[in-house]
Amino acid sequence: MSFLDRIRTCHRWRPERYRPFVIDGTRYGWIDAEFAARLARFPDVFATEERAVHLRPELDSFDARSAAVADAMARLRYDGALPYWRGELYPVTNRWDAPPVMALERGAVPLFGVRAYGLHLNGLVRTDDGIAVWVGKRAASRKVAPGRWDQMVAGGQPIGLSVRDNMIKECAEEAGVPAALAATAIPAGLLAYVCEQPDGLRDDIAFLYDLWLPPDFVPTNTDGEVARFERWSLDKAVAAVRDSESFKFNCALVMIDLFVRHGALTPEDDDYQAIVEGLQGRV
Amino acid sequence: MSFLDRIRTCHRWRPERYRPFVIDGTRYGWIDAEFAARLARFPDVFATEERAVHLRPELDSFDARSAAVADAMARLRYDGALPYWRGELYPVTNRWDAPPVMALERGAVPLFGVRAYGLHLNGLVRTDDGIAVWVGKRAASRKVAPGRWDQMVAGGQPIGLSVRDNMIKECAEEAGVPAALAATAIPAGLLAYVCEQPDGLRDDIAFLYDLWLPPDFVPTNTDGEVARFERWSLDKAVAAVRDSESFKFNCALVMIDLFVRHGALTPEDDDYQAIVEGLQGRV
Repeated sequence: MSFLDRIRTCHRWRPERYRPFVIDGTRYGWIDAEFAARLARFPDVFATEERAVHLRPELDSFDARSAAVADAMARLRYDGALPYWRGELYPVTNRWDAPPVMALERGAVPLFGVRAYGLHLNGLVRTDDGIAVWVGKRAASRKVAPGRWDQMVAGGQPIGLSVRDNMIKECAEEAGVPAALAATAIPAGLLAYVCEQPDGLRDDIAFLYDLWLPPDFVPTNTDGEVARFERWSLDKAVAAVRDSESFKFNCALVMIDLFVRHGALTPEDDDYQAIVEGLQGRV
Repeated sequence: MSFLDRIRTCHRWRPERYRPFVIDGTRYGWIDAEFAARLARFPDVFATEERAVHLRPELDSFDARSAAVADAMARLRYDGALPYWRGELYPVTNRWDAPPVMALERGAVPLFGVRAYGLHLNGLVRTDDGIAVWVGKRAASRKVAPGRWDQMVAGGQPIGLSVRDNMIKECAEEAGVPAALAATAIPAGLLAYVCEQPDGLRDDIAFLYDLWLPPDFVPTNTDGEVARFERWSLDKAVAAVRDSESFKFNCALVMIDLFVRHGALTPEDDDYQAIVEGLQGRV
């Protein structure tokens, strides 16, 4: 096992299994044959063709699209076809700074293969022995990746909330970080990846933050999503990510990026160039 | 002008103007028609075809290739066809951690369009007003990008020297950084870009370092390559890179990466996603 295995996992999908999901002439997602067949039940909303699924052009505004699709999704949920239903709306947009063309139930996002935005925050501590990192074990009750290791704080981007405001909110909910401390988190870039997961096709943009914590800070989960937190040396984290699949797939990617940005990997290490290029999406 | 303009400059080339440079069945470079015509003068070394330039398969070892090409380059230099001659050998390899297939005069590397490796080191200071960065103005006598701003330390990777050893050597030569201080520099990833420049096609891998300096440290150039150093606030650096072309093309890219990694740009800024994806080579 290796860092490259972890990276490849995040960039593995079979384009030939998907057809474009098109709104007003622009592709916003990728839909497989099974989900296309389900959408064909709603001919007033979707024009399902062999080579593409189009949102009906009569749905020509954010509100009209969002309402018509929400109605279809509610019916699919009733039929048990949306097992990852979240009751949370995501924006549909290919660029975070562009106005979304519609809103979409979060649990349907990977079925449409629509780009999803989220944030991952590394909880870091400077110690006499170097950098330490707080990691959280995902609760056994979670539908996605139960029991896997995760960043101290991570969360999806719902519609209508800035990344920074969402970061501060998630810091409070997931790890009990006071807002004044969370506000000192440093944006550190983003990772982009596309891969097939049990809930569908994940086309994700993960915004990254580093939060430097006081040595005596101990995270406390308040929303039940984290079973427990542990504080690890960077060396321990390097070994865990490299030698096991104990981290959630995309959280491993965020860890490897952390290792690269803070010098836990160096140009003298095997595969350094391939690892960094892999993080950059060139696998 | 914008960060995206700076990034696009580093990824601008016309593939249709180049043919592959092939050694033992693998492409290692890109050669334009003019340089291919010059190489056709050496039929014992190069097989120059319409669609590719091959190194002769009889040259089947590192030493044989390096010697035969060195001889051809010496003759081209005598004819004035290698104006950027450096008298320094670069390794020819598509991956830094793979053994090079030959050595090549540095000044010929962009004419062969062979991948070149280098390092860029950000000289950083923590101040009460945030991060400050040392920048160096390239000497007016330099053939490449005279008078442009540069990182505090940067240099190409000659053959046979690790990136770390070269970093420590360049720190001493370019900025008078003691070896013990240089040894604390933190590797921070790499940038890859391909672009047409006055000296040829640059297919570069730039290894990145951050060096945190004591507040009273002042860099001193010893090799004549830097006209002067200045210490800027990150805000001043952001404005200079965004609003002017005063930085050498690839040094601007390294600065933008620095801004992203240290939070001088945030997800709330215009074009954040496009900027980070551009740094990652997706323009």
